[in-house]
Formats: sequence, C-alpha cells, structure tokens
Amino acid sequence: MRVLGVDPGLTRCGLGVVDGGTGRKVSCVAVDVVRTPLDAPLANRLLQVSDAVEDWLDRYRPEAVAVERVFSQHNVRTVMGTAQAGGVVALSAARRGLPVVFHTPSEVKAAVTGSGRADKAQVTGMVTRLLGLAEAPSPADAADALALAICHLWREPMRARLAEAEARAAELARAHRARLAAAQRAAQKTAQKTGQQTARRKGTAR
Amino acid sequence: MRVLGVDPGLTRCGLGVVDGGTGRKVSCVAVDVVRTPLDAPLANRLLQVSDAVEDWLDRYRPEAVAVERVFSQHNVRTVMGTAQAGGVVALSAARRGLPVVFHTPSEVKAAVTGSGRADKAQVTGMVTRLLGLAEAPSPADAADALALAICHLWREPMRARLAEAEARAAELARAHRARLAAAQRAAQKTAQKTGQQTARRKGTAR
Repeated sequence: MRVLGVDPGLTRCGLGVVDGGTGRKVSCVAVDVVRTPLDAPLANRLLQVSDAVEDWLDRYRPEAVAVERVFSQHNVRTVMGTAQAGGVVALSAARRGLPVVFHTPSEVKAAVTGSGRADKAQVTGMVTRLLGLAEAPSPADAADALALAICHLWREPMRARLAEAEARAAELARAHRARLAAAQRAAQKTAQKTGQQTARRKGTAR
Repeated sequence: MRVLGVDPGLTRCGLGVVDGGTGRKVSCVAVDVVRTPLDAPLANRLLQVSDAVEDWLDRYRPEAVAVERVFSQHNVRTVMGTAQAGGVVALSAARRGLPVVFHTPSEVKAAVTGSGRADKAQVTGMVTRLLGLAEAPSPADAADALALAICHLWREPMRARLAEAEARAAELARAHRARLAAAQRAAQKTAQKTGQQTARRKGTAR
C-alpha cells in the first residue's frame, strides 16, 4: 500500500510518499516541502498548496492520504492557515475517491518512536532509520510528512480491524436487544391472556 | 458588481449572491444554505461544500467572493471544520482567478447595522430591509452570507481607495528617500574632495 503523508501548512507544507511492504517494512518514494510566499493573498497560497498536492497525487498515485490533525493550542493565525491547508488537501483526495485519515501529532509520534511525547529530533531520527535514508529529511515538516505516512501504514490495518470488530459487536448487541424486546412482548401477551382468563373465571364464579 | 458571500461551515454553510447598484443600492440574486451530514467523513463533507460553491460560481458568476474570517474563541472542533470549509471555498474562487476577501464578523455587523456588536436578529432584520425581501432569510447562516456580500460591496471601494493611497504614499516616500540618499552621497563626495584638497595643501605647505 502507498500512502501520501501531509504535514499541512502555508509557509511550509510537508509531503511524503511511503510504500508499505510486508510486516513493518517501509520505503520512501518521495519527500519534499512546498513553500508559499508569506505576503501572497491567503486564497493564492491555498491554491499553490492544492496544485502541489494535485501534482503529487497524479505523479505518485497513493491509495490513501494521511493528514496531521490540527489543534488550536498554538498561535491562532497559524492554526487557521494550517486547518485551511489541511482542508484543501483533504478535498483533493476526496475528489479522487481516496480515503483521508487525520492523525494527531501524538499518534504519529507514538507510532514512529513508541512515545507520544517524542521531540522533533527523535521523530526525524526514527524516520531516517526506518526508511533507511542516507541523510535525515529536512526541514522537520518533511520528516513529519513521512512519519504521518508510516503511522497510517501501521495503524490503518489495526484501525480497520477495530472498526470491523466494533461493527460486529454493535450488530450482536442489536440482535440481542431485539430478542429481549420480543421476549418481553411475548411475556406481556401471556400476562394479558392470563389476566383475561382470571377475569372471565371470576365472572363465571359470580 | 456581483458578490458571493459565504458563511463557511460543515453543518450549515450559508451562500448568498448580491448585486450592488449605484450608491448603497443592493439586491438579492440568490440565497441558500448547504448542509452536510454530521456522520460523514470530514473529507466528504468538504467535498460537498466545495461542489455546492463550484455550482454557485458557475451559475451566478460573481466577480468577487467574501468569506467570513474565523476566530478560534469558540469550540475548537467546530472552528477547525469552519476554517477548513472556508479554505475550500477560497480555493474554488482562486482557481477561477476571483478575488477572495475575508471579513471579520464585527466588520460585517458594522457595515450592515452600524454596530460591530449587533446581534443575529438585528443583522437579519437589516439584511431583510436592505435587500427588500418579503421575508427574513432563514436560518441565520443564510442572512449572514447576504450580510457578508453587502459588507464586501460597501467596504471594497473604500478598501481599494485606501490601498491605492497607501501605495502612492509609499512611492512618494521611496522617491524622497532616494533623493535624500543622492544628496548625502553628493555631500560626502564634496567632503572627500575638500579633505583631499586640504591634505594636498597641507602637504605642499610642509
């Protein structure tokens, strides 16, 4: 399976394509960072990010897109731009019918380093080692994009199995509730009939 | 001039097209609200919003798009979705080379009601009156989209004049600085020449 990981942003948008093999084997297909000028109108910056992503989707044909889920703890202005960039990336994928999954930064860190609180250097170090790269991807946004793709490749089968198990459990619960309701209705009917018979018998007795 | 106003959102996205006439005359061309299902994947909801906006751009051919600028004071999850929806709207406009301007809620309220702190009912009331509508647009997102378009029609000429004045002032300042620098260089040259002449004269005197 081939995944495009995207660390969304307007100033720097990390893009990384990773192929997953058997087990936990992963290999890097492409990695880069798209930059858009700070002084350009917002809509034009979004267009540049969108064009780059469209180009990568055409060129590398990934089967899924993994995008970093943004939180608003940080600078409000930056977060809005990041969310908007993430939105246009998700849109491009959805237009092609590709699944888009948003992963939180701690999910990505945990998947790649084993700790959800790993720092940027640890993430970059593990990404470099896992993909067997000659040198560390730079800047950090490039490494983050690759980490997102790896996270998706490793988490997705588990997530899919979990979703399937949850759906099966929900179906079993529904069937069980239906049987319970049927049993209750049957019990009520019997109670009503017994009540009527008792009343009739009482009537006869009078 | 014809403007498409967009109150971005995933649950409800307000769309309103307004034509501006001479002075402050405005008329409503179309207004609606696009809804996307809460339980659909985020990327698909963004796609539905994008498709609706593309359809409106085709159908009504506005010359500019006015989008509400999102702030993150509110619920984080909602704000992210709103920012992402605003991003895909801006992208559609940019793809067609249309100018996109983001207006803050208080700019819109101030433009339409005269007060940046007007409530939803006041905004809806003024929009209904300004556009001479038989009934108030509903829900509030529809009225907000029309208010955005009106705000853009009324603010844009002022904003454009201001930008032009600022550009002219910057050009004048640049020309002034260039003349100053030239004068300084000339003064330094004269000083150097005088210095050399003085030195030569001193040398001859020795």
